[in-house]
Amino acid sequence: MTDAQLIRDAVAKSSDRFLDHLKQACAIPSVATEGMGTEMTAWLENRLMELGARVSRLSVPGSPEALLGEFSGADSERTLMIYDHYDVQPVDPLNLWISPPFEPAIRDGRLYARGAADNKGDLIARLSALEVYLDLYGELPCNIKFFIEGEEENGSVHFEDICEAYSEELKADDCVWEGGWMDLDGRPEMYYGCKGLLYIELRYRAITGDQHSSIAVYAPSAPWHLLRAINSLTDDEGNIVIEGFHDRIVPPGPREEELIHSIKFNEEAMLKRLGITEFNQGLTGSALTHALLYAPTANIDGFETGYTVPGGQKTVLPAEAMAKIDFRLVPDQDGTEVAGLVRRHLKDHGFGDIEVSVMSHENPSRSPLDSTLGRAAEKAAAGWFEDAVTIYPYMWATGPMFPIAQGLGIPICSPPGVGRPDSNLHAPNEHVHIADFYDIIGYTVAYLREYGRTVPA
Amino acid sequence: MTDAQLIRDAVAKSSDRFLDHLKQACAIPSVATEGMGTEMTAWLENRLMELGARVSRLSVPGSPEALLGEFSGADSERTLMIYDHYDVQPVDPLNLWISPPFEPAIRDGRLYARGAADNKGDLIARLSALEVYLDLYGELPCNIKFFIEGEEENGSVHFEDICEAYSEELKADDCVWEGGWMDLDGRPEMYYGCKGLLYIELRYRAITGDQHSSIAVYAPSAPWHLLRAINSLTDDEGNIVIEGFHDRIVPPGPREEELIHSIKFNEEAMLKRLGITEFNQGLTGSALTHALLYAPTANIDGFETGYTVPGGQKTVLPAEAMAKIDFRLVPDQDGTEVAGLVRRHLKDHGFGDIEVSVMSHENPSRSPLDSTLGRAAEKAAAGWFEDAVTIYPYMWATGPMFPIAQGLGIPICSPPGVGRPDSNLHAPNEHVHIADFYDIIGYTVAYLREYGRTVPA
Repeated sequence: MTDAQLIRDAVAKSSDRFLDHLKQACAIPSVATEGMGTEMTAWLENRLMELGARVSRLSVPGSPEALLGEFSGADSERTLMIYDHYDVQPVDPLNLWISPPFEPAIRDGRLYARGAADNKGDLIARLSALEVYLDLYGELPCNIKFFIEGEEENGSVHFEDICEAYSEELKADDCVWEGGWMDLDGRPEMYYGCKGLLYIELRYRAITGDQHSSIAVYAPSAPWHLLRAINSLTDDEGNIVIEGFHDRIVPPGPREEELIHSIKFNEEAMLKRLGITEFNQGLTGSALTHALLYAPTANIDGFETGYTVPGGQKTVLPAEAMAKIDFRLVPDQDGTEVAGLVRRHLKDHGFGDIEVSVMSHENPSRSPLDSTLGRAAEKAAAGWFEDAVTIYPYMWATGPMFPIAQGLGIPICSPPGVGRPDSNLHAPNEHVHIADFYDIIGYTVAYLREYGRTVPA
Repeated sequence: MTDAQLIRDAVAKSSDRFLDHLKQACAIPSVATEGMGTEMTAWLENRLMELGARVSRLSVPGSPEALLGEFSGADSERTLMIYDHYDVQPVDPLNLWISPPFEPAIRDGRLYARGAADNKGDLIARLSALEVYLDLYGELPCNIKFFIEGEEENGSVHFEDICEAYSEELKADDCVWEGGWMDLDGRPEMYYGCKGLLYIELRYRAITGDQHSSIAVYAPSAPWHLLRAINSLTDDEGNIVIEGFHDRIVPPGPREEELIHSIKFNEEAMLKRLGITEFNQGLTGSALTHALLYAPTANIDGFETGYTVPGGQKTVLPAEAMAKIDFRLVPDQDGTEVAGLVRRHLKDHGFGDIEVSVMSHENPSRSPLDSTLGRAAEKAAAGWFEDAVTIYPYMWATGPMFPIAQGLGIPICSPPGVGRPDSNLHAPNEHVHIADFYDIIGYTVAYLREYGRTVPA
């Protein structure tokens, strides 16, 4: 029997229980912005201890508790960190969920629940993998530190401080990051870095209170002012025109360009899924994947002002308007600096009276493409998955990698994980394919074993 | 004793009861967009019949019922129509009301309630005036038709049809329109016409469902598209740049210009009230009053998309965005035509995929400045109010005058009424000064008496 078959059998033996763990975890409404993490940390602590971990709770003033679960392994000189997060995105719009977000439901071989893909699926798969590993081989290949934070979906506001405060406890040689992916066709994907994010809230109050709209002829309009301010951030094609915004951007190197060209992106499936006929600015082929990884964005997450009841009429000049914008950043942009550029841009264009609140910022991060973990994960993937793994030098989404990769100097790699592009991350009806969940448990065992065998560079 | 003193004494005798009527009427939540008019029409019918009216209910398919209360008077050859509406604006944002909108409360000599100023205050004052008139003089000066509609705040969608269907029943020589005003200093104001209104809802769906904002790099954004579409409607100074929009605008004539220059607008008080230091585009003096009466506007009543919880973070590419815009129109703009121009403009500028729903439109309307009613109301005002009445040839707000003034050919005039610019029409904490309410009851008696004496031109 091959190693892979051995692992698959071991996963199958406990698969119902592992799925039940995932359902239990997904039933806990640990929405980051709603501060509901206590039940979740208790559940995780219990599970980590059950597996034999020594558990510590890491926090700084104002932060939710992160969990550190430490396991000893055969090679006591090497430590692998596994980073995941236990918090989830808010659930609205609630009415679009087919089943309630915190009542995990199975339909068509998929488990639907908020957090199923982002990131409880990977977290529970990895915890399950440890159980399988210990069961099969008696001992982990090296020390393992599970580092599980509780405000990733809220911009990891305190994460950098936690990493600094506990830099000794968090020492490690490599770090498994959150989750790689399966693509729409179920082909594995992994990556070595991620975009940064600057999330701001813009708020403008033009007059003391809402007014009858007839006086819009002489009284200033908060909606118009904020709308024009936001409009000034890009040109008509959507290119960001904030002065200095692009200055620090470093183009990808030759190996990255090579990888970009090798990325198979199922454009047809994605177009169909989104219900559109072409991508922004006609992007296609490697121009599309290049943009996906290396183009920054300015996205309007929300805009609200005045009277918004569908079909209703109220002739009102709203006193106030509010918008949320996220900027995805690429190396070597800096979140704090970009916030300053946005403020300066608004000021220079007559919108200095708009209140800009930085809700969070995370710097873009990249790690070496030939790290020990990376080599092990790539080799294990070749032996595990039917399809070749697609290597993204860089991920289009954002995580708080910077404090670990750059702050603590730990190379990061995200091996393939349970999520797919149609998993509805951050959206109603989030889900994972249950088969993917089992597959990733097994693959995790496989790359942990490979990691133990891989000689550090 | 002068006529005026006689009237004041008669009002004072029943003032508590009249105020109680106003409180009763304001306690009924007759929000137009929420279809809650039945209790209101029953209350009004009862009050009209108590005063001796013959009451009919006028409706067309889909409309709420309008009430017609007919009184016979001394001069059976002349009929004065009095137009008011019993519906009120929605109450949100509810949390900004100091006392609940449908629990009338008295503070500092003012009655706070939704509808207190717009338009139940004038309606109840006029019903009270009929009682005083009958009490003092035994018989009304001419026939009077109270015409009270129920969807003025919802754009009077069926009003034109009602006027056409009941053109016989609605015949009259003059029409008292809704309500003139007191200015911020309590000086009376009257007017002879009003702006039109086109209210549209814009809706755009870019993709099938909300997505993780990382894909904003290639997937179209509904908020950006709608924001750019709206932005295209004006230049940076707020001037409307819709092709053909200004073509039909007729500038005011010499008498109108004269009146515009005579308008006393308390700029300082309004600036203070709004919490601003100057008006749009630096407007002041007669340029300000000119704009107030004769400049059209494009006002954003509401805009909503995506995630809008204050202080929260959700990195989402919203699938959909919605906005409500009202255009105030001036003679001789036509609501239907302007809706077509907006659609064409959007199409010509790359926004033809945005869904435009016309929620309502009312054409601007003006009446002769020397009508029988106008002369009577002006003369009575001179004898009643301490301050000279300010005559607006035209009102900055909108009412469904067009079907009466142009459709039925009945000259319209709005004598001074109970509202003031700080009455918070369409906004939280709507109110009237109770002294103004009593004053307008008496003044109504005075101008009805004067109307009876005025010889038609």
